Amino acid sequence: MQKILNIPYSVQWNDTHITILNQQALPHHTEFIDLHTPGDVFQAIVSLQVRGAPAIGITAAFGAALSAINAKEEELAAFKKKVEEDIQHLASSRPTAVNLFWALRRMGSVLAKAKTVNGAKTALVHEAISIFTEDEAVGRTIGEHALSLFNTGDSIMTICNAGSIATARYGTALAPFHLAREKEISLKVYACETRPVLQGARLTAWELMQSGVDVTLITDNMAAHTIHAKGVQAIIVGADRIAANGDTANKIGTLGLAILANHFGIPFYVAAPSSTFDLSLPDGTTIPIEERNPEEITHIQNIRVAPKDVAVFNPAFDVTSAELITAIITDKGIISPDYKENIAAAIR
Amino acid sequence: MQKILNIPYSVQWNDTHITILNQQALPHHTEFIDLHTPGDVFQAIVSLQVRGAPAIGITAAFGAALSAINAKEEELAAFKKKVEEDIQHLASSRPTAVNLFWALRRMGSVLAKAKTVNGAKTALVHEAISIFTEDEAVGRTIGEHALSLFNTGDSIMTICNAGSIATARYGTALAPFHLAREKEISLKVYACETRPVLQGARLTAWELMQSGVDVTLITDNMAAHTIHAKGVQAIIVGADRIAANGDTANKIGTLGLAILANHFGIPFYVAAPSSTFDLSLPDGTTIPIEERNPEEITHIQNIRVAPKDVAVFNPAFDVTSAELITAIITDKGIISPDYKENIAAAIR
Repeated sequence: MQKILNIPYSVQWNDTHITILNQQALPHHTEFIDLHTPGDVFQAIVSLQVRGAPAIGITAAFGAALSAINAKEEELAAFKKKVEEDIQHLASSRPTAVNLFWALRRMGSVLAKAKTVNGAKTALVHEAISIFTEDEAVGRTIGEHALSLFNTGDSIMTICNAGSIATARYGTALAPFHLAREKEISLKVYACETRPVLQGARLTAWELMQSGVDVTLITDNMAAHTIHAKGVQAIIVGADRIAANGDTANKIGTLGLAILANHFGIPFYVAAPSSTFDLSLPDGTTIPIEERNPEEITHIQNIRVAPKDVAVFNPAFDVTSAELITAIITDKGIISPDYKENIAAAIR
Repeated sequence: MQKILNIPYSVQWNDTHITILNQQALPHHTEFIDLHTPGDVFQAIVSLQVRGAPAIGITAAFGAALSAINAKEEELAAFKKKVEEDIQHLASSRPTAVNLFWALRRMGSVLAKAKTVNGAKTALVHEAISIFTEDEAVGRTIGEHALSLFNTGDSIMTICNAGSIATARYGTALAPFHLAREKEISLKVYACETRPVLQGARLTAWELMQSGVDVTLITDNMAAHTIHAKGVQAIIVGADRIAANGDTANKIGTLGLAILANHFGIPFYVAAPSSTFDLSLPDGTTIPIEERNPEEITHIQNIRVAPKDVAVFNPAFDVTSAELITAIITDKGIISPDYKENIAAAIR
């Protein structure tokens, strides 16, 4: 694959160890850390140095591969027992991370099938690299599809970080911007800072600056004025979960942006891998909305910004109705309304 | 006037001095400061201990009154020269504050008409108190009108701080909540934190908690989900400037809330004194939008939250089209569309 400008990697395989981007140090320091053991990997996931569901899954898979190549056991059963224990431990690093369990199940299934210790080592390294490269290909495909919807010189708005550092590379909503840079297509990005946790300010602005994308940071409440004053042509966001009818759960603030896009008559795109669809949900009404710690709102970087004992409502996600979504951009192609029919056809 | 729960005063006259709320210490400390001289008042305005256009004008007027009662000059011309100098100095405390100049012009005009030193002292104290009580009455009237539009149990959303501490008392958009508390009408308020300067978190949440209003703090990007999930019945905001056709400039984020109200089919109210109308402006298109320091976005309470050298767009205000405004609530009554005709009738 051709050389791309500095799209940051969240994690890279280096034969004897992996190298991860320490996302806890961003945006202040760009720091890469070498991890040599599954215990190192466990700690990096627990301490949020790695974040983003796909990136966590990939990193954990590499953790299982490190377990295999480091294992001293020469007898197959003992070897399998040791690696299986490390996989179980890795699976306990983030209790609700679906991609983590999915990636480690793939590793466990390869381990189970192995006939020799050396065969297992090779197969586990190969499987982890496959998980990585498949995710990279998904991001690139989503980026190509998304880029086909934009024109040179467009200004595009996004929220949160559906980016390279949350995945193997490229990301989802940010993939077209990295690809545009590679293809020397000029796009301008407005990144909403994404309170309360500021993923837009801390991560998206940093990531796009790394790969040379023209990015401008705004606070979330500047979105309406910015669309109007700067002539934003489209909004693109990631997704945490998409129901069978196209209703989409994503970072809090996404619904507001979809309503703005609708008001200003500009397209609103959701970019997500096909694994994000949950066809068991007929629509978004039953998606539970996690409420998080009030201190995320009352404190910023440990400094209090609101009165003591103030009541707070802190939903982490919102659900955007399918009617507000112009298209859903996936690795299986661009899905347009009528979603119920078209999602079923594309994803099943 | 009947005793009201603790609606905080921004400034109070105490015969020999004034007492101001130090808004720079909020929300951490509720601190009142006594000011005895016009020099003290100048410093309090310069250092932003007093903020909010009406509160600044009132405080400066009291500063002129303090100048008069403190003046040692017994000869009328010398007395007038001294007080006039103090008024000029006070006028230089905030170069763009319209209410400041307006209040000090009133004080200067009373000074000019005085026939004796003692007469001038009495008249200047009286004029400053009048400026205060007129503003208090304006806030109360706006609050009564606004309250007539709400029902017991309603949930109402607001942004920024159009409150008691920005005015003599009651405020504009927050006036109905203070009055509802006085009348024991139960209302629930959702306060948007109002990035970048966090007036909603630091000031509105604090102010409403002081008077016992049921207030819940959210980040600005939670507005859409909160309206939907919590069944918000109306949005009410203040205004910095209203054009002849009803287009309204107010704190950044106001336009987004108006679009949300429109989308969800709930009323969007602007609350403002009649002095906010600028009938020389046919519409909002020519209202200049101040862009402020990028550090307001990249830093929160002096801590960096975004990458070094990131590009930032930091508009301080936005303009909401009159079509999105259900009614404008003023001290001259509630103005409904057609605004061009009805504003001219109410304000001229």
